[in-house]
Amino acid sequence: MKLVTFSSGSHERRIGIMTDDGVIDIHKANPDAPLTMMALAGAWDQWRAEIERVARRQPDVRTAKLHAPVPRPGKVLAIGLNYADHIEESGMKMPEHQIWFCKMPTSVAGPSEDIQMPKVSTALDYEAELVVVIGKGGRHISKANAKDAIFGYCAGNDVTVRDWQFRTPQWMLGKSFDTHAPFGPWIVTPDEVGDPHALGIRAFVNGEKRQESNTKHLVFNVYDQIEHLSQAMTLEPGDIIFTGTPAGVGAAMKPPAWLKIGDFVRIEIDKIGSIDNMVAAEGK
Amino acid sequence: MKLVTFSSGSHERRIGIMTDDGVIDIHKANPDAPLTMMALAGAWDQWRAEIERVARRQPDVRTAKLHAPVPRPGKVLAIGLNYADHIEESGMKMPEHQIWFCKMPTSVAGPSEDIQMPKVSTALDYEAELVVVIGKGGRHISKANAKDAIFGYCAGNDVTVRDWQFRTPQWMLGKSFDTHAPFGPWIVTPDEVGDPHALGIRAFVNGEKRQESNTKHLVFNVYDQIEHLSQAMTLEPGDIIFTGTPAGVGAAMKPPAWLKIGDFVRIEIDKIGSIDNMVAAEGK
Repeated sequence: MKLVTFSSGSHERRIGIMTDDGVIDIHKANPDAPLTMMALAGAWDQWRAEIERVARRQPDVRTAKLHAPVPRPGKVLAIGLNYADHIEESGMKMPEHQIWFCKMPTSVAGPSEDIQMPKVSTALDYEAELVVVIGKGGRHISKANAKDAIFGYCAGNDVTVRDWQFRTPQWMLGKSFDTHAPFGPWIVTPDEVGDPHALGIRAFVNGEKRQESNTKHLVFNVYDQIEHLSQAMTLEPGDIIFTGTPAGVGAAMKPPAWLKIGDFVRIEIDKIGSIDNMVAAEGK
Repeated sequence: MKLVTFSSGSHERRIGIMTDDGVIDIHKANPDAPLTMMALAGAWDQWRAEIERVARRQPDVRTAKLHAPVPRPGKVLAIGLNYADHIEESGMKMPEHQIWFCKMPTSVAGPSEDIQMPKVSTALDYEAELVVVIGKGGRHISKANAKDAIFGYCAGNDVTVRDWQFRTPQWMLGKSFDTHAPFGPWIVTPDEVGDPHALGIRAFVNGEKRQESNTKHLVFNVYDQIEHLSQAMTLEPGDIIFTGTPAGVGAAMKPPAWLKIGDFVRIEIDKIGSIDNMVAAEGK
């Protein structure tokens, strides 16, 4: 199933099910259902059967605007240097431990929202990533139980301001500019994705393929990541994990190929779909 | 004025004004007032006069449990290496640029809540810090206007799991364990604090003074910090900034003096007050 946060006309954001013919409005089908994706993620065990029943209805809306599936997550976690080919192009060594940083929740953007070119930098780069959305979450989740903590998967772009990323030893600021965490276009539930470690992943800039790999090449896989993170912190419904990017980022090209205003960036993942974001001047 | 998030008896968390004789329940005084500290921070311009009027009432509650003033901030930002003496004891160089990392919102704890000793480490350390709470916030806030973005100040402990902090180049995980961002005990409004760069700051472990400095020694002051952060991201009502710690952390003692279960840690700042947290085993 593909779950969306959408709006149509002048209505507020609602959650729905994306079908080939349009969006089924979950709240219209059942006024008792959770109102936000975060609430649905936390109550999935109780609501799954009902949402599957709702998914057989006719769509309510033919065309809808899609927002980030979780518009304001509690956490946006991201792992660095997690594909061997990207580690090599970055001139780094294979890490012994998982390297975690984060993106601020204000950096979240929708699947077709503009990526802002910062006023303070032009070293703007893309990173295609499989995104995990946490369902019921928890603390001290073992690798064996990690599957049960996952609500679903998205395509994401870990947009990065490279000079700000490397100006200090801490990457967070360069990773947290407003609009620099677009993901979506929907959350695909695990039953539809199957093995999350067998998905082709690609990035295109203006139609030119820049990144192409497969999630089977993740150094630390999705379940490793959940086990490790949850040793430190409670993972909660709607928390977002960017799981790493393969080779082919703009910074590794010679000379570096930074994104420019007007560029179209597509991140595409098998069985999930794609997000398509244009680069636009900040404040436009 | 001292603003608190409190509860009493079996009531839910509410916001109030701390006085010498107890807490004034803001919602009881005016049912139209914002219900959360985050909402009040965002609407302070409209509500300030009314809250000042309410502050002249008799307290509603003599003894109340105080929670973190903002129980679930959107962001918890933190700057590293921001007092000269702490830079020296860490064996680091004065940074050219502000070094920003963050703590996850799930790490927030109240002013007298237990600090959890992790199951996965014993290298538990304290860091006394002045905490800034953002009011109306914004983007591209100049240093000259930064004052207007501030809602108030708290005392905070940037509790750190040192081995996890330094096991990879990114500090975030070691800074983000559950309960490792206690702050409070209240938000003191800027009119009552005066110059935020003239405040004595101290940390005590079981009554022994470990840190003692003054916020006049901040390398990058509070207004510098707001200007810099807001070049990258929109600061929002209730966002939290840990502004750096002076010398005297446990890691710098020879041998390192890690916190132990049963230790009492007090962080005390002039004109604000203190938070007092005990170290307890995780899961207790």
